[in-house]
Amino acid sequence: MIKTVEQYIAHLKDGREVWIEGEKVEDVTTHPHLRTAVEIGAMDYAITADPRFQDLMIVKDEKGEPYHFCLKSMETRDDLMRKRKIVQTTARTCFGLPAGAKFTGIDGLNSITAVTRRMDKNLGTSYSPYVEDYRKEMMANDAAVAVAVTDVKGDRSLRPSKQKQHKDFYLHIVEETKDGIVVRGAKSHISASPTVDDIIVIPTRAMKEDDAPYAVAFAVKPNAKGLIHIMAEHEVADDANDLDSPLAAHIYTSESLLVFDDVFIPKERVFLKGEWKYAGQFAYMFANYHRASADAYKSIENEILVGAAALMAEYNGVADAPHIQDKLAWLAWYAETTDALGRASCFDCAEDKDLNVVFPDPVYSNAAKFFFAEHYHQAIKHLIDITGGIVSTIPSSKDHLSPKIGHYVDKYLAAKEGIPTEHRFRMIKLVKDICSYFLQGVTLHGEGSLAAQRMSIRVTSDWAKYASAAKRAAGIREQSPHPAYSGLLNYPTWTWRTKSNII
Amino acid sequence: MIKTVEQYIAHLKDGREVWIEGEKVEDVTTHPHLRTAVEIGAMDYAITADPRFQDLMIVKDEKGEPYHFCLKSMETRDDLMRKRKIVQTTARTCFGLPAGAKFTGIDGLNSITAVTRRMDKNLGTSYSPYVEDYRKEMMANDAAVAVAVTDVKGDRSLRPSKQKQHKDFYLHIVEETKDGIVVRGAKSHISASPTVDDIIVIPTRAMKEDDAPYAVAFAVKPNAKGLIHIMAEHEVADDANDLDSPLAAHIYTSESLLVFDDVFIPKERVFLKGEWKYAGQFAYMFANYHRASADAYKSIENEILVGAAALMAEYNGVADAPHIQDKLAWLAWYAETTDALGRASCFDCAEDKDLNVVFPDPVYSNAAKFFFAEHYHQAIKHLIDITGGIVSTIPSSKDHLSPKIGHYVDKYLAAKEGIPTEHRFRMIKLVKDICSYFLQGVTLHGEGSLAAQRMSIRVTSDWAKYASAAKRAAGIREQSPHPAYSGLLNYPTWTWRTKSNII
Amino acid sequence: MIKTVEQYIAHLKDGREVWIEGEKVEDVTTHPHLRTAVEIGAMDYAITADPRFQDLMIVKDEKGEPYHFCLKSMETRDDLMRKRKIVQTTARTCFGLPAGAKFTGIDGLNSITAVTRRMDKNLGTSYSPYVEDYRKEMMANDAAVAVAVTDVKGDRSLRPSKQKQHKDFYLHIVEETKDGIVVRGAKSHISASPTVDDIIVIPTRAMKEDDAPYAVAFAVKPNAKGLIHIMAEHEVADDANDLDSPLAAHIYTSESLLVFDDVFIPKERVFLKGEWKYAGQFAYMFANYHRASADAYKSIENEILVGAAALMAEYNGVADAPHIQDKLAWLAWYAETTDALGRASCFDCAEDKDLNVVFPDPVYSNAAKFFFAEHYHQAIKHLIDITGGIVSTIPSSKDHLSPKIGHYVDKYLAAKEGIPTEHRFRMIKLVKDICSYFLQGVTLHGEGSLAAQRMSIRVTSDWAKYASAAKRAAGIREQSPHPAYSGLLNYPTWTWRTKSNII
Amino acid sequence: MIKTVEQYIAHLKDGREVWIEGEKVEDVTTHPHLRTAVEIGAMDYAITADPRFQDLMIVKDEKGEPYHFCLKSMETRDDLMRKRKIVQTTARTCFGLPAGAKFTGIDGLNSITAVTRRMDKNLGTSYSPYVEDYRKEMMANDAAVAVAVTDVKGDRSLRPSKQKQHKDFYLHIVEETKDGIVVRGAKSHISASPTVDDIIVIPTRAMKEDDAPYAVAFAVKPNAKGLIHIMAEHEVADDANDLDSPLAAHIYTSESLLVFDDVFIPKERVFLKGEWKYAGQFAYMFANYHRASADAYKSIENEILVGAAALMAEYNGVADAPHIQDKLAWLAWYAETTDALGRASCFDCAEDKDLNVVFPDPVYSNAAKFFFAEHYHQAIKHLIDITGGIVSTIPSSKDHLSPKIGHYVDKYLAAKEGIPTEHRFRMIKLVKDICSYFLQGVTLHGEGSLAAQRMSIRVTSDWAKYASAAKRAAGIREQSPHPAYSGLLNYPTWTWRTKSNII
Repeated sequence: MIKTVEQYIAHLKDGREVWIEGEKVEDVTTHPHLRTAVEIGAMDYAITADPRFQDLMIVKDEKGEPYHFCLKSMETRDDLMRKRKIVQTTARTCFGLPAGAKFTGIDGLNSITAVTRRMDKNLGTSYSPYVEDYRKEMMANDAAVAVAVTDVKGDRSLRPSKQKQHKDFYLHIVEETKDGIVVRGAKSHISASPTVDDIIVIPTRAMKEDDAPYAVAFAVKPNAKGLIHIMAEHEVADDANDLDSPLAAHIYTSESLLVFDDVFIPKERVFLKGEWKYAGQFAYMFANYHRASADAYKSIENEILVGAAALMAEYNGVADAPHIQDKLAWLAWYAETTDALGRASCFDCAEDKDLNVVFPDPVYSNAAKFFFAEHYHQAIKHLIDITGGIVSTIPSSKDHLSPKIGHYVDKYLAAKEGIPTEHRFRMIKLVKDICSYFLQGVTLHGEGSLAAQRMSIRVTSDWAKYASAAKRAAGIREQSPHPAYSGLLNYPTWTWRTKSNII
Repeated sequence: MIKTVEQYIAHLKDGREVWIEGEKVEDVTTHPHLRTAVEIGAMDYAITADPRFQDLMIVKDEKGEPYHFCLKSMETRDDLMRKRKIVQTTARTCFGLPAGAKFTGIDGLNSITAVTRRMDKNLGTSYSPYVEDYRKEMMANDAAVAVAVTDVKGDRSLRPSKQKQHKDFYLHIVEETKDGIVVRGAKSHISASPTVDDIIVIPTRAMKEDDAPYAVAFAVKPNAKGLIHIMAEHEVADDANDLDSPLAAHIYTSESLLVFDDVFIPKERVFLKGEWKYAGQFAYMFANYHRASADAYKSIENEILVGAAALMAEYNGVADAPHIQDKLAWLAWYAETTDALGRASCFDCAEDKDLNVVFPDPVYSNAAKFFFAEHYHQAIKHLIDITGGIVSTIPSSKDHLSPKIGHYVDKYLAAKEGIPTEHRFRMIKLVKDICSYFLQGVTLHGEGSLAAQRMSIRVTSDWAKYASAAKRAAGIREQSPHPAYSGLLNYPTWTWRTKSNII
Repeated sequence: MIKTVEQYIAHLKDGREVWIEGEKVEDVTTHPHLRTAVEIGAMDYAITADPRFQDLMIVKDEKGEPYHFCLKSMETRDDLMRKRKIVQTTARTCFGLPAGAKFTGIDGLNSITAVTRRMDKNLGTSYSPYVEDYRKEMMANDAAVAVAVTDVKGDRSLRPSKQKQHKDFYLHIVEETKDGIVVRGAKSHISASPTVDDIIVIPTRAMKEDDAPYAVAFAVKPNAKGLIHIMAEHEVADDANDLDSPLAAHIYTSESLLVFDDVFIPKERVFLKGEWKYAGQFAYMFANYHRASADAYKSIENEILVGAAALMAEYNGVADAPHIQDKLAWLAWYAETTDALGRASCFDCAEDKDLNVVFPDPVYSNAAKFFFAEHYHQAIKHLIDITGGIVSTIPSSKDHLSPKIGHYVDKYLAAKEGIPTEHRFRMIKLVKDICSYFLQGVTLHGEGSLAAQRMSIRVTSDWAKYASAAKRAAGIREQSPHPAYSGLLNYPTWTWRTKSNII
Repeated sequence: MIKTVEQYIAHLKDGREVWIEGEKVEDVTTHPHLRTAVEIGAMDYAITADPRFQDLMIVKDEKGEPYHFCLKSMETRDDLMRKRKIVQTTARTCFGLPAGAKFTGIDGLNSITAVTRRMDKNLGTSYSPYVEDYRKEMMANDAAVAVAVTDVKGDRSLRPSKQKQHKDFYLHIVEETKDGIVVRGAKSHISASPTVDDIIVIPTRAMKEDDAPYAVAFAVKPNAKGLIHIMAEHEVADDANDLDSPLAAHIYTSESLLVFDDVFIPKERVFLKGEWKYAGQFAYMFANYHRASADAYKSIENEILVGAAALMAEYNGVADAPHIQDKLAWLAWYAETTDALGRASCFDCAEDKDLNVVFPDPVYSNAAKFFFAEHYHQAIKHLIDITGGIVSTIPSSKDHLSPKIGHYVDKYLAAKEGIPTEHRFRMIKLVKDICSYFLQGVTLHGEGSLAAQRMSIRVTSDWAKYASAAKRAAGIREQSPHPAYSGLLNYPTWTWRTKSNII
């Protein structure tokens, strides 16, 4: 089915336990701090309700029943390219962020699909039918879905079972019954959990044998008993103040600390239960999908960043200064390179025929994430450089709107002729939001840190190819060079001096 | 004299017109948004009242009357080194910022001292006695003093007199009487203006002849008729919440947009009045002093930044990870290089014997400012990289202190054994504040943009020395090489092949 | 036709005037300094003679006559992708460089094809039939072809006609007869001119009206009267020493200064003659094709660089050091990003239906070139960092091969067990060559400088899209937003506070 | 005594065994490949013979006997500052390199002085009298002295005694008699060993107990039996060609692989013999002195680099282009920051009163080395960017001087009016040399790699100070804060909300 906005919102009133700034939220659909999160979730349903977007967003199952394309298993390159287009469309709509109803969760769904198939094939388990049932239920409900991956981790130098202060720094099974399992622990940085219908939970890292109880994956309802959503400190003082916080007021995604205080999970929703050798694969496959998702929406976020820089240059009257033009060229390069790399990861996707899935090319998806995160601080440095010190000292919009002193602000914060001061004022506020600590943290650490991307690139790159290239150039003979370097011709007429060991 | 904290505070209640967030401030000494600014100003008086700091802070005039060292004219290297020490001591006290009562203003005072002496010498004007009288009055009152330099500028591609929307984008003289002048315009990014006793106003740039009315410098009282302080939007939602905003709650410096709505300045307080050729020198000499002041306090701000990174690494349990250690080494290098360069600018100071003043070496002071600003975004990138995504998603301290859910936060945000969660919690909040848009803007643009430093370095570097070095190395004969390259010996026994044109 | 290696070589003995290191070359096919250049040219013919490569390299014309694919006009995306594959295949064969017989010249041919069609269409000239005839002749001869673009330029701040020392810094027409034109000037950095059959000459920049005589494009034979090839100083002391100069001995491309001392060009080979408004387009279209060609071969050159770094890490025994692994990951990222961006430029090519040509997407092709050139010095820094100081101090291979002291070198330059010292020795020599000033200059300035790429990115980026993105995020209403930002939905249920001017 | 140039040269003919490019050198004073090395060594004596430099260079001992200042033990800040001035003076003379007779060796001498004093104090050994005698002999002979530190190392992941292929990758004692020891192994990158009178040998790293035989330090004569100097491949094809290789022809420092084939060392010249706990200190103290020496000469090398960039900009006619000016400002900043940091390391020197020695501040000396090495590739990138592609394609000076084609080169490589083409030609050749692989390797790895500097900065920085800074800012109470953060005042009038744990 395809739900309406109203159906989506109605479904959120289910007694889920959500806290923000020390206060328990009575109704997530009416609390001011949660309004943006609800809007972002609801946008997903608004788009599918709009005929202009339905060709992109909706597919039909074998019975002709429509469902949201994102709930489909990824089986072809075209699937990945279409999903990328959906992410970018919703991100354009939602000011740089993808709509929240089916974003991170879908990457979790595709991860559990692939890995449970592999487990069932290799171990003889039977998790994948549970996943298929779960997917069908989500299609039937047009579910909004989140994913919970990152454990709180405690001492980062210690594995889950070796933690010292307590053993709950990684989510784990504390009890098992014939009907299911009971889990304890906490997941961090969970986007949108208070405003979805379903939460998929997977391990955050590879495990060793004594970590087996920590090898657990499942799905859970947001209102499950014992599940507590503790939301991040609210970045925006006044949620309705989209003049002073234009971006922050629109993109808040309700990151939460998700506490599992002995939550029961019925066995039909359990997708990993102690098979520790597979724990890392859930995280790996999720990362493969999710980094490509991030690549998709970041290229849209970058459009806003580049546009803000270009307009600030224009509004300040410095668009023709050569060093400003150089910075703008750099910023366009930053945006377009992110876009091209992200697209390459979907276009040149990897395929696992055994499992009947495709996934984004790991080198390219990590290259894209690494590219935009590595350069993000350079980008915001350029942005502030162009905008000026006013980003730190701009008065409140209340001063601008004040009948007493508003005329001073309007007169003196004007710049280039023909540009209303209000436009410059708004753009400065946008710059301020783009350069927030919040986006810095999300850009560097969302979808994995720079170190994670470096590691992924290192382990998935074709080092044999590089080695053959260098050995050939150095004149080191190889028995079996990499295929890309096999069968190449020697220079036609010259016998090189060095007799031994030359190709 | 040396004032007390109480005297300082009492003096601020003088009817000055201050606005913040659309509201007129009745009493700057009691308004919550201004308390930190008042504290920072008052700290200057608290320090001079403390016997442990008096040797550093207080000097006596020829009559044995004590006055604040910062009010002394800079005449020797030791003066600059001592002033640097004062800035660093107050910056350590005030969480990275120098105390506000005599910081930027002093650099303005030293600028007008030097430039008016030069003008009087060259033009036969008699501004410098006014400056000396003014300095004596400040000593007598132990005045807190700010400086207003940066005009709002309008279209940055147009000079003051060429602006299109109106002619007030740069402060200028609109009327002159036998008793003084009337000025109109607005100055931007003015630190501490609502909490000082005096404001020195100087031009922000070099002028041309038709800009003559904009070539104006003077001193004004904060409560002058027609002077309106419009303060920057307040960064901290709750001024007393030093748990969630540890740095922001301590270092707010009340940047303001300072509007001059036809303010009268008596002639005894006017230090430049149309001599447009000298306008740029006020800005230049101010920059010379002020960049060195910034170098001094930034090296303290950096101590906090580096310490936060090192402690986050320790608290997270990653202090032994090689890539973390590399980043920490980089950060220590960042801090110590800033310190060494800033010190070099005072130690190797420039001297103008004609004017009886010294000032920081322009190449070194700009090199230091360029160094820390150029690398600041790399520094905060490293800091967030080490801290983790939690910088974006940490709950409020109200959650941590909640009797209902505080135990979850305490349990799950713990990390390394032996470190109280509260310490990690506080440190994450500190990181968040260090990475704010506010500090980014201040670091890049305070004391002039990167472009300003590049220009200063370019115009003050010894290019003749570099040219002689390269010509000698390339074998290009020079008639009169730079002294550093004069009289150097040739290689003792070899006659080089190239006959012509070789040294 | 498809020529043989022997036919190619025989054709080079035609009396062309070539100078190297002060000496006139009697026979380019036997001079030791030119052997590598001849080999690289000949390789093109060796490949087409090899059945394994013929499907890639050879196409047939309408009469069934085979010809080299590179001589075909680029009409579809597949054409560009296939040409990219050819460049990469020959680059793998030729140690990172593309084979010289049809590399730069082809990009020149495609430029004159497109621009003369546009001129003929717009101006009513009839240059394009000459180009078509010329192309057919090249197909019939299987010609090796070079291009000459960059003038020597004189004072870079002056346009061609404004030069002061003389008027020949840009190539220009000095005489015109009914049969043709006479040209004078010199072109710089001309790859392979002494070892090709044909040279295409186009302007290097946009012109103004008084530069009209400099607006000239044509084809010329390498042995034309008055044409003098002055080759770059030879980088390698001993051309046969591929042990000490493994890369330099293989990739020398005979860059020359090409002097036109009043050379006659018959009118059938003239493709631009004074139509100054079109001069810049030749350079622009050449750059579009050529940057994509460079992107293609640089990604292969990078494979060698990355492989050298990985093998040096292994040979030195430091492959497991975390900071080395980080650098290797960075290098793989560098190589793969260059590859992905270059491919995107061909895949997402631009099309000019009027002219029946396609060309690489300018943003992506410039983004790729900018990416690899901007980061090249970081790449070689990493490479040397991994290799060690031995890159500067390694003895000659003559020491290694010496019967007297070779055993010392072999013993003491050994490192990781199981790796022959010879392998490490060769690899260090390869590193040395990769880090040469030659490759630095080629990488930065070949196919245009970084400034050229920045300018290209700036003028070809979709700034309207960026502006719409930022305006929407800042709440600035637009009448006609960019299509990518048209028709987007608003948040479904919330009415934002700000009344005026909001979307 | 103070030797003459002739005495120095005469002394080199002592039968030392030196090899270069597979050939045994009969006489180091006449072999063309060694002439520059001899000149650089001789320059030291030429300078002391020149009255203009004697005040700087010469001191007298208690008997009034003159000796070279560099041979004096470093006991005061002024000693370090004077030595720095000597290094910079000789570096200006020798085209960026310090004169070779007493450069690296002196840093070795000061290292063994300090560490043997410490050993004698702690262990009761009696090495320091040997060192004093050795120093006196050097004073008496005005010796030229080199140091050998870096072992060839084999597999870098294995300690000396754990090497697999053989046990000689680190120099070690193979026999001990009552008269002395016999050593075997090889040292790498040894500057100037064929052209000095004495060589000091110290360990390259910290050792563990089973490495005891590798803990060995001593002095040896260059012509000792069994000592073989295998020199680096010669960078310059024609040693006399200072037109095409202006820098390379002047600064070649004869790096050698120094093989110890069972060399006997008399006990009076042995300064460490198995006391493995002290092995690392020799390397550490050497590094402290030597990084400061490097900082001194690199700031001179940078003067050449910056001058070359500025002159190329001028010669090319692009000195007024804003992006060029930005790069020049950056380069001046690069040079001056290196200088200021290096000077700070001497001015703020560390003192060990027990040992009666001073040494450069480790943080600053490493900060300087890290600064210039970290940014070197950026510097040469800017240099090539400014110079143009001509750096890769410039013809030989033989073409320029050719009576046949020289006029073409002169005409077409001209640029800005008034600048002789020869000047531009020479400057381009200088740029080429500055960007060589040789200087890249020396800059990155000479005086230790970037990793070594990071490690040094990390272990010598004042982390307790940083921690106190951050804790105070975060509101974490400390019992005993760092002295810099002790006794600081609290804000005067405000009671902060947070009760617990606040300072």
